[in-house]
Amino acid sequence: MSIWVSLLITEFLGTAILVILGNGIVANVLLKNTKGNNAGWLSITIGWGVAVTVAAMISSAFEGGAGYLNPAVALAMAISNFQGSFANIAGSTAAGVGVFFLVILIEILGAMVGQIVVNLVYFKHIKMTLTAEEKDAAAKVLAIHSTGPTTRSCLFNFIAEFVGTTVLVIGILAMSKYKGVTDLVGPMMAGLIVLGVGLALGGTTGYAINPARDLGPRIIHSLMRLKDKGTSDWGYSWIPVLAPLSAGAVIGAIFLAL
Amino acid sequence: MSIWVSLLITEFLGTAILVILGNGIVANVLLKNTKGNNAGWLSITIGWGVAVTVAAMISSAFEGGAGYLNPAVALAMAISNFQGSFANIAGSTAAGVGVFFLVILIEILGAMVGQIVVNLVYFKHIKMTLTAEEKDAAAKVLAIHSTGPTTRSCLFNFIAEFVGTTVLVIGILAMSKYKGVTDLVGPMMAGLIVLGVGLALGGTTGYAINPARDLGPRIIHSLMRLKDKGTSDWGYSWIPVLAPLSAGAVIGAIFLAL
Amino acid sequence: MSIWVSLLITEFLGTAILVILGNGIVANVLLKNTKGNNAGWLSITIGWGVAVTVAAMISSAFEGGAGYLNPAVALAMAISNFQGSFANIAGSTAAGVGVFFLVILIEILGAMVGQIVVNLVYFKHIKMTLTAEEKDAAAKVLAIHSTGPTTRSCLFNFIAEFVGTTVLVIGILAMSKYKGVTDLVGPMMAGLIVLGVGLALGGTTGYAINPARDLGPRIIHSLMRLKDKGTSDWGYSWIPVLAPLSAGAVIGAIFLAL
Amino acid sequence: MSIWVSLLITEFLGTAILVILGNGIVANVLLKNTKGNNAGWLSITIGWGVAVTVAAMISSAFEGGAGYLNPAVALAMAISNFQGSFANIAGSTAAGVGVFFLVILIEILGAMVGQIVVNLVYFKHIKMTLTAEEKDAAAKVLAIHSTGPTTRSCLFNFIAEFVGTTVLVIGILAMSKYKGVTDLVGPMMAGLIVLGVGLALGGTTGYAINPARDLGPRIIHSLMRLKDKGTSDWGYSWIPVLAPLSAGAVIGAIFLAL
Repeated sequence: MSIWVSLLITEFLGTAILVILGNGIVANVLLKNTKGNNAGWLSITIGWGVAVTVAAMISSAFEGGAGYLNPAVALAMAISNFQGSFANIAGSTAAGVGVFFLVILIEILGAMVGQIVVNLVYFKHIKMTLTAEEKDAAAKVLAIHSTGPTTRSCLFNFIAEFVGTTVLVIGILAMSKYKGVTDLVGPMMAGLIVLGVGLALGGTTGYAINPARDLGPRIIHSLMRLKDKGTSDWGYSWIPVLAPLSAGAVIGAIFLAL
Repeated sequence: MSIWVSLLITEFLGTAILVILGNGIVANVLLKNTKGNNAGWLSITIGWGVAVTVAAMISSAFEGGAGYLNPAVALAMAISNFQGSFANIAGSTAAGVGVFFLVILIEILGAMVGQIVVNLVYFKHIKMTLTAEEKDAAAKVLAIHSTGPTTRSCLFNFIAEFVGTTVLVIGILAMSKYKGVTDLVGPMMAGLIVLGVGLALGGTTGYAINPARDLGPRIIHSLMRLKDKGTSDWGYSWIPVLAPLSAGAVIGAIFLAL
Repeated sequence: MSIWVSLLITEFLGTAILVILGNGIVANVLLKNTKGNNAGWLSITIGWGVAVTVAAMISSAFEGGAGYLNPAVALAMAISNFQGSFANIAGSTAAGVGVFFLVILIEILGAMVGQIVVNLVYFKHIKMTLTAEEKDAAAKVLAIHSTGPTTRSCLFNFIAEFVGTTVLVIGILAMSKYKGVTDLVGPMMAGLIVLGVGLALGGTTGYAINPARDLGPRIIHSLMRLKDKGTSDWGYSWIPVLAPLSAGAVIGAIFLAL
Repeated sequence: MSIWVSLLITEFLGTAILVILGNGIVANVLLKNTKGNNAGWLSITIGWGVAVTVAAMISSAFEGGAGYLNPAVALAMAISNFQGSFANIAGSTAAGVGVFFLVILIEILGAMVGQIVVNLVYFKHIKMTLTAEEKDAAAKVLAIHSTGPTTRSCLFNFIAEFVGTTVLVIGILAMSKYKGVTDLVGPMMAGLIVLGVGLALGGTTGYAINPARDLGPRIIHSLMRLKDKGTSDWGYSWIPVLAPLSAGAVIGAIFLAL
């Protein structure tokens, strides 16, 4: 099997598991009548941190797996080290560009499939939450799919996502300079970075810091046929896509220049 | 000592410690008048995660120890790698099948002994909980033994246990591809996987994801002579047995095919 | 410097830091007007787990340091491996017995000094707690020194401390069979074991599981001149000393026989 | 590039990230209408622990990076091992002294820049908190910048910061004796030390234990033009500077003497 096929398969699997474990904890905390109902922000951020650790560990375990799981990380890698990553894998620069876009596409697909699994596991609880017509029921159902800001502001929401992704991408690129990074400790550190970003910088927009993690589930929310599900908030959707990609591009360029 | 005897002893010891530490935290959170009363879902999931880490570390420390501690994991190992695991240990394919079934049996026995220890440590608190006749007292006492769903549905409860075990088994099989997995970091990663599954996918059924962990303590609950202890809910008991085993078989077969 | 002198110094320093960080979190959670007031059982158990990790890391960093920090662990080591531990260090069997008792003594002294530091840091808050005459004020001040049971019962309190120490000692002895145990990961695993024991088995007696950690601070409580400080509860004090030592002796003997 | 230039750049970047992630979680917990509002002391201490891990990992990843991020740690390193650290890097003793003071200066500058980022991300929430005129609004806004005591007392506040920094510095110096300390596990242990100190010893003064972390953000608070922002509490500001430096000097001298 070509290495770039392995890369696509592991990115698909990894991003699906990322969303299953990540949005799974959000569902567990927000939806009605679950065992983790109201377990709080620390539970959500620890859950997303462990989701990154487990998903990165699984997708990096197989030959050809890279464990990007995030278009912003893949973009930073591509810019800072194109010949050493995508071009090498695909055999030529042009093919490398193609593989790069396939990676982003498959990550979004993986996130969509992961979200379908979350919705299946918590299906009864989603319905219960909407039926109870409790306050913010529709907002909660959207929140188990995609992020949203506490206070709407193009400028400040963009800044929050940009800063969060900047710390994430600097962390991932710095990590790659350590020995031991391909051991089991590497994915643990990746999870700690995301835990840190979530606790510190997730307070305003809910830290998408990953276009696939936000866009894929939003597409599922939009396609889902469910009474009273409310808006998919497409008006906000460009921020958790463009801000992380901008941060990935900027940091990738800086590391290229170093 | 034959390796397969060591395997059986370490599986017994490890599963007992798994249940002591795992159901111990549930007892501490749910029972009346304990120091950890009401400590919440994050405490329970961290407690079970650490239980897996400690139990796997202990049972893998000794020659011949494998640290499966879970019939679904043992089944996935057996299917994906039979010659390399049970058949090799036992000396022949037929004997390997025998050892495999003994492993499952001894895991259930270990879980039973572990539960007896939990009930001994928390005996006064179990009695206090039942005597106080507070709401859900009998349900709480069952919950320190075995899992139960928030909403009864054969289909959705099966799905929840199947998905949770799938993530667990993929994680364990992927882990085995890393160097360093036999160091102390290996058991830590195993605990993180179970923490992630618990936080994300435990919200509906309480994540048994392990037939021995659910069946063994349920047998103890059923045998226990205690006034007002309530039902052992045998009607539900097949789901946390069959769903994990199905997931183990499916993932084992996929890894065999790879 | 003789190795046994290093051993005594590192045991003193390590046990002092263990109690500073361990009883520090208890003081932070229980005393009036602190920043961590009411932070809950998970905070206490994580705090004690990290205390073990940091104290074991520090005391094992120096030549001759062993990081026992606990008479029950030292006893299990002495019984399971006397020639390989104390006798070797001290040069002869008789001198080894002497060093063993000095280790236990110095651990108690270290715990006493650690407690004095905790009381100094939280002095104003101890006074505030007692002055406010709120419910259980004296019990809280005792609890930042030593453990106590939720329900008094010689039998069941002994069992709880015995089982908790058994899991701890099995874990420590099993750990020593891994490579990498002398790296930084070793102390992390030791902390995880104590976190697991605390979450699961600390619900009834508060998990002393260490005679020095309980006896040393109780002596300080007893000597402290403070109005309304209440009883030092010497009637209970023998259980957190004898139960852990019994568990250490039993597990040490089993590992010797293996 | 000279090594000492790398050292300054990595100290600047690392301290900025330390304050972004560290004071970010404080802002998330304390400010009005954030997603982490009221998430509690455990969230704050875990957030600061992860902040140390991520910042130390990033700043140590680059050639010449040391990951001190704290004048008290730098001072302890300088005293215990001057020839092996600053003098060697700078080429002579006199130049080493110069680099040492530049490191302290650049750490304060890094902390200031980090605080500006926190204030930018949470700008709307800072305004909301002040506008709502809820109790302690100004105190909360100061608290997302710098530490402050629950009970004012030069003596006891100094003691608390001195003891906390002592444990931190002993831990960091002891860590340096382990192999594996330059792997990813090293920064994890550094984060655990700060988590332990925060949980146990942060209850009275909020554990600055780092002059740059406290002074840099206080300067920003003082310069910030914001209605009703309240006092910058310069009267207290010398304690979180002098107490940590004193502890660093004392412990550094002890390690030099060993």
